[in-house]
Amino acid sequence: MSEIAVTERTRVKRGRKIANYDRETINRIIDEAWVCNIGVSAAGQAMVQPTSHWRIGDELFLHGSVKNGLFQQVMKSETACITLFLLDGLVFARSAYHHSVNFRSVVIYGNGRLVDDPEEKRSALDTMLEKYSPGRSAEARPPNETELKVTAVFAFPIEEVSAKVRTGGPNEEPEDMALDIWAGVKPVTSVVGELIPD
Amino acid sequence: MSEIAVTERTRVKRGRKIANYDRETINRIIDEAWVCNIGVSAAGQAMVQPTSHWRIGDELFLHGSVKNGLFQQVMKSETACITLFLLDGLVFARSAYHHSVNFRSVVIYGNGRLVDDPEEKRSALDTMLEKYSPGRSAEARPPNETELKVTAVFAFPIEEVSAKVRTGGPNEEPEDMALDIWAGVKPVTSVVGELIPD
Repeated sequence: MSEIAVTERTRVKRGRKIANYDRETINRIIDEAWVCNIGVSAAGQAMVQPTSHWRIGDELFLHGSVKNGLFQQVMKSETACITLFLLDGLVFARSAYHHSVNFRSVVIYGNGRLVDDPEEKRSALDTMLEKYSPGRSAEARPPNETELKVTAVFAFPIEEVSAKVRTGGPNEEPEDMALDIWAGVKPVTSVVGELIPD
Repeated sequence: MSEIAVTERTRVKRGRKIANYDRETINRIIDEAWVCNIGVSAAGQAMVQPTSHWRIGDELFLHGSVKNGLFQQVMKSETACITLFLLDGLVFARSAYHHSVNFRSVVIYGNGRLVDDPEEKRSALDTMLEKYSPGRSAEARPPNETELKVTAVFAFPIEEVSAKVRTGGPNEEPEDMALDIWAGVKPVTSVVGELIPD
């Protein structure tokens, strides 16, 4: 267990019982998720985008077009809020109120570092491919100079971060337990199928 | 096809070829997704939260604790940016650069309307249960006054909205097609399993 320091922004206020600040737990959620959501404020208006991500050590990496409006805000040092969410189950309680979902989520606040060193940039993009299929970075035709130039890569510190993990069956009011109403969990899983060749 | 009017905020700038403004397509994505992400700006800082949602007509509904910090910003008429994302496949190209994902996404900008009419609020929460399991709202013990009071329900107009839909195999540079590198799509699906009774 490597506990992460809590800040005012990352202190979980709602759902404190399921709050988690363990780095290994957080890293596992980041690695299992295929997509995150990144939000920034631009002229007082929040902009949010879903985008692929990957992790190297204690940094979360994103990439996209250098012309992407949201990433341009990141380059202007706007602090981003990045969320990751894995749905693990639909939780059916005897009361409408206690219906819930089992999930693992992460919220990160941080400023993106533009990865502009050519070697670090190539290496970071290789690591993204390895997430999609181990060995892929040695198989695919590497990016050329133009492809690298139009791609922006950002690294965000996984430092100001919190997680929430809900598992198990429904929470119920004691007086509801005698009701003749079905309850339990329907597990939800994300499945990657076999390759359909091009 | 019911085409939605495009605004400056919802005009897709990157990936124009996969932009979609068809209301039926957008509604299907919203209905299939279990969770959205909502972002608001608070004192110049974006806050983003994953949360369950459901749809009634041309409005997207969210609910949560009345004490939720983000929802309190919504109550202050902060315009929200809501994203939905369904991952359909990992796309392997012969070039590193053209690796991609198949997905369906929606981005909505709008101001939340607090649903405070008791009948509308009960009916909206019933509709959420129906999304999780048809018939559930008639089975579960209905919310009591206290449970209703601590739950805030918001409706967002699905009006200032855009979608992106990517399908099919990899885009490739013509000169890469002769390379002896495997390519194709690994489909990704979300599966809801059988009930594990409580």
